[in-house]
Amino acid sequence: MLVGTVVGNVWSTVKDPSLQGLRLLVIQPFTTGKESAEAIVAADTLGAGVGERVLVVFGRAARHCIGKGHDIGFQTAVSAIIDRMELADGRTIGPVANEDI
Amino acid sequence: MLVGTVVGNVWSTVKDPSLQGLRLLVIQPFTTGKESAEAIVAADTLGAGVGERVLVVFGRAARHCIGKGHDIGFQTAVSAIIDRMELADGRTIGPVANEDI
Amino acid sequence: MLVGTVVGNVWSTVKDPSLQGLRLLVIQPFTTGKESAEAIVAADTLGAGVGERVLVVFGRAARHCIGKGHDIGFQTAVSAIIDRMELADGRTIGPVANEDI
Amino acid sequence: MLVGTVVGNVWSTVKDPSLQGLRLLVIQPFTTGKESAEAIVAADTLGAGVGERVLVVFGRAARHCIGKGHDIGFQTAVSAIIDRMELADGRTIGPVANEDI
Amino acid sequence: MLVGTVVGNVWSTVKDPSLQGLRLLVIQPFTTGKESAEAIVAADTLGAGVGERVLVVFGRAARHCIGKGHDIGFQTAVSAIIDRMELADGRTIGPVANEDI
Repeated sequence: MLVGTVVGNVWSTVKDPSLQGLRLLVIQPFTTGKESAEAIVAADTLGAGVGERVLVVFGRAARHCIGKGHDIGFQTAVSAIIDRMELADGRTIGPVANEDI
Repeated sequence: MLVGTVVGNVWSTVKDPSLQGLRLLVIQPFTTGKESAEAIVAADTLGAGVGERVLVVFGRAARHCIGKGHDIGFQTAVSAIIDRMELADGRTIGPVANEDI
Repeated sequence: MLVGTVVGNVWSTVKDPSLQGLRLLVIQPFTTGKESAEAIVAADTLGAGVGERVLVVFGRAARHCIGKGHDIGFQTAVSAIIDRMELADGRTIGPVANEDI
Repeated sequence: MLVGTVVGNVWSTVKDPSLQGLRLLVIQPFTTGKESAEAIVAADTLGAGVGERVLVVFGRAARHCIGKGHDIGFQTAVSAIIDRMELADGRTIGPVANEDI
Repeated sequence: MLVGTVVGNVWSTVKDPSLQGLRLLVIQPFTTGKESAEAIVAADTLGAGVGERVLVVFGRAARHCIGKGHDIGFQTAVSAIIDRMELADGRTIGPVANEDI
């Protein structure tokens, strides 16, 4: 499971039929260092908004969260919206990205 | 799921028989930073062209998108062609790479 | 399996129901070099605390460690708390991060 | 699926019995940037030689390509030898690495 | 499959019961470039020692190599000890790390 920040939305018309009706978010993985990482796209059924911190899961766990069964053309999903994350270096990270970084 | 840009095509004669007839694209993963990443190759059944932004899925999800069953020698596929991606930093990214970056 | 250091905790209210009651830790993967890496979040049933070194497993192995079956929305877990790690360059690494780095 | 260049061979005597008789190649993943990446080792049944460009697959797809069933101790295989790869930046990449880079 | 060098050992008392009796090694992935990578931990049944080069496999392949069935809390294993690796740049790499790098 990764922690990331919702940084955008994605829309698509030409797609595998199993993606119909799924809300797709762009997620920026959280790093404790400074490197940027690849942006990932996750299906979201919890209503996460831009700027919110979320837990992202993959594969079987993602299909479970979406709840459409295992015969689908996606593999990444938001499994939780984060309320609070406390790090050992003293930082407390709230649910919204701009508050703390 | 990754977002990437189609940057090329691949042809092969000597290959596993299950790859016969599959259109193979070279995809450059999208990063919000500047690092280049490994190029990935995905099978495409949606007709994505060079310069288009696409969603790329892996494993079971990819086999679902290709529709040839699970006993095949590939694991990556295009699941959607992206119309529009809006990022929190104000960028709006259209379906074609050269328009916006 | 990765070795990492527990660097924080995560709390969430809005989440997939299968995550209910799981203790979630933020883990910083151990590198022999200096690069920071993406922070990962793992479910923990062993009682690992901030600063402790742990083994982190993924997928089927993680679901085994959590013990809630395979139909769940997570995929990463702590499988062991490390007592001691001896490296070829002479370093001996104890269970607590600040002792040795 | 990754594209890579065959950069070497690997021999082993002490190994899991399921690896007996498999030809093992060292593959350097192809990047559009300049970073070197981890070398990967893939089983090859197609006869790829040093310097050739190949498609590399993982997991279930790799076991399919090797054709020894699913109860084996490897997970990476060459699924195709690349004849030609055309990239959007104008480069045409032939089957042999030294010709074009 | 990755090639790596055994750089250390790991001991743990508090762990998932399925890890009982497994020998755990710290492996440094081999890169053709200079970047250090995350250290990984693999279960070993072949008797690999510090400084030896090994093949590391993941997931189902790893569970096969360990031979305890699929309901276990680990996912990485040593599948072979490398005798010799020949690279296209002329380097010949023996089984022990310090001989050649």
